[in-house]
Amino acid sequence: MQTDLVAALDIGGTKIAGALVDDAGSLLVRARRETPAQEDAESVMGAVGEVLAELTSSPLWSGVRALGIGSAGPVDASAGTVSPVNVPGWRGFPLVERVAEATGGLPVVLVGDGVAMTAAEHWLGAARGYDNALCMVVSTGVGGGLVLGGKLRPGPTGNAGHIGHISVDLDGDTCPCGARGCVERLASGPNIARRALEHGWRPGPDGDRSAAAVAASARAGDPVAVASYERAAQALAAGIAATATLVEIDIAVIGGGVAGAGDVLLAPLRRSLRDYATLSFVQRLTVAPARMGTDAGLVGAAAAATAALPASGSNGVRAVAAQ
Amino acid sequence: MQTDLVAALDIGGTKIAGALVDDAGSLLVRARRETPAQEDAESVMGAVGEVLAELTSSPLWSGVRALGIGSAGPVDASAGTVSPVNVPGWRGFPLVERVAEATGGLPVVLVGDGVAMTAAEHWLGAARGYDNALCMVVSTGVGGGLVLGGKLRPGPTGNAGHIGHISVDLDGDTCPCGARGCVERLASGPNIARRALEHGWRPGPDGDRSAAAVAASARAGDPVAVASYERAAQALAAGIAATATLVEIDIAVIGGGVAGAGDVLLAPLRRSLRDYATLSFVQRLTVAPARMGTDAGLVGAAAAATAALPASGSNGVRAVAAQ
Repeated sequence: MQTDLVAALDIGGTKIAGALVDDAGSLLVRARRETPAQEDAESVMGAVGEVLAELTSSPLWSGVRALGIGSAGPVDASAGTVSPVNVPGWRGFPLVERVAEATGGLPVVLVGDGVAMTAAEHWLGAARGYDNALCMVVSTGVGGGLVLGGKLRPGPTGNAGHIGHISVDLDGDTCPCGARGCVERLASGPNIARRALEHGWRPGPDGDRSAAAVAASARAGDPVAVASYERAAQALAAGIAATATLVEIDIAVIGGGVAGAGDVLLAPLRRSLRDYATLSFVQRLTVAPARMGTDAGLVGAAAAATAALPASGSNGVRAVAAQ
Repeated sequence: MQTDLVAALDIGGTKIAGALVDDAGSLLVRARRETPAQEDAESVMGAVGEVLAELTSSPLWSGVRALGIGSAGPVDASAGTVSPVNVPGWRGFPLVERVAEATGGLPVVLVGDGVAMTAAEHWLGAARGYDNALCMVVSTGVGGGLVLGGKLRPGPTGNAGHIGHISVDLDGDTCPCGARGCVERLASGPNIARRALEHGWRPGPDGDRSAAAVAASARAGDPVAVASYERAAQALAAGIAATATLVEIDIAVIGGGVAGAGDVLLAPLRRSLRDYATLSFVQRLTVAPARMGTDAGLVGAAAAATAALPASGSNGVRAVAAQ
């Protein structure tokens, strides 16, 4: 029987996924429930419990050494709590303690979903072999995570790399977070679509008003659609350049639905990056699309847990053992 | 005889300072030359050589285990070279190799001056006891450095924490670095003075057009002078908030001549920080004035060298042993 497994949970506003993951990153056992996102705290925890029950009933469970959780944020790894924006019933919910209880005392590691995706891309994806990396998800929101000096850097609360909410336009539009001109406010999918509509772009006969529909128009040469992606690319470039200037990264990996636009986003992003990443030590920065796909959350949660195990040395991830 | 000393060099556009530093951060022997900044590479190195000759002739020299250099940037710690903006004769100058040769094979560690100041503030100054800190110098330029997870984080090239050249205004004025809307372009001393003059501020009878003179007018209630400091504070706040959002810092320490304006700068900075540092995990961020004064460069260069010694464990600083 395999003895070096890690359990992983990927908790989002639409689904709760779980898996047992081996030391090659293969998902050996999977479980999944829809997130009862609008229900109360215990109902949401009930869905987590069902996923865990499937995992613990596997004959492979006895080889599990730790459990990693990647959760929609905000998270607080230092307190072991989560408050996902899209799960209003969970505010400061003690997820680490509850999962530890449900798994009989396993060490549990919590990180934000952007950090989890980063751990996956660094372990097995586009950031593999890079000691200093920013990985991002550009989707309904903009999230991210950092690898510094060869190690995942989740930060004390598991939120480091939160590039979506740095301001690149200090007098700009107010962001739902309360600040102004955040990268997310300029570059998320809904904001790409909103900006295109405000400047005269109209959806096709199917009525699709998504960023993907804007990307299709951009590929067909619609200048308003092109301009909306260029503005998003400019904001992402300014944020990536800021990150490189602050912590010296060698690669920026971009995933998420908006990155599915491909060169409609990445070509102007690479051009804009030359405008903002000007200092000598940031000029060699590479931009690459993410490779890990929809399993990145589970693989990354497993990687974060593995990194936090004592045998792997400390990397700042807080491991919480159940009592 | 003391056996655990470190030698330090602080290399700037106006002076080259050296010291022997003990493990309490005391400067036991000092040497200093003016920087022949407009002369050729060997003349500048000659001044460094004179400083080193004074240090090596000390009876305490036999206790020196390593040498740290904090230099005006850009630096490239991975190549061991420096290219200080204000010393045009040095472009890619192999300072680490030359200093190692001049000191008979001592391990030499190179970091940027912002990183050196950060090391000093973390060892003995305002960032002492904080595991995650941004330290900044706001002066003719805006520089900085980072402490992450309790350790100095110079980055692979020794330039991490370069907050002066992150863009907080992506459509803003062009910065000499080539980007737009950099923190330095909005918040450095010369830019505070320039903005005040452009908006109608006039110097007093002594003709002093410095940021310090603008600060004096601000303290006397001049609204244009107040507004110029408020704009600088807003840009610094956006940059500090971006840093906290990216890497989870607990404190921002601000030194340099512009920070000498005291509450003229710090009061609006703390207000603006509430506007930009909005996510839960960055709201507890503290802002404090620097404490280490003019010796910060030497003390910090010593700290960076100490941190890089094998006995202290690796922190990402590159130590280069002479052949």
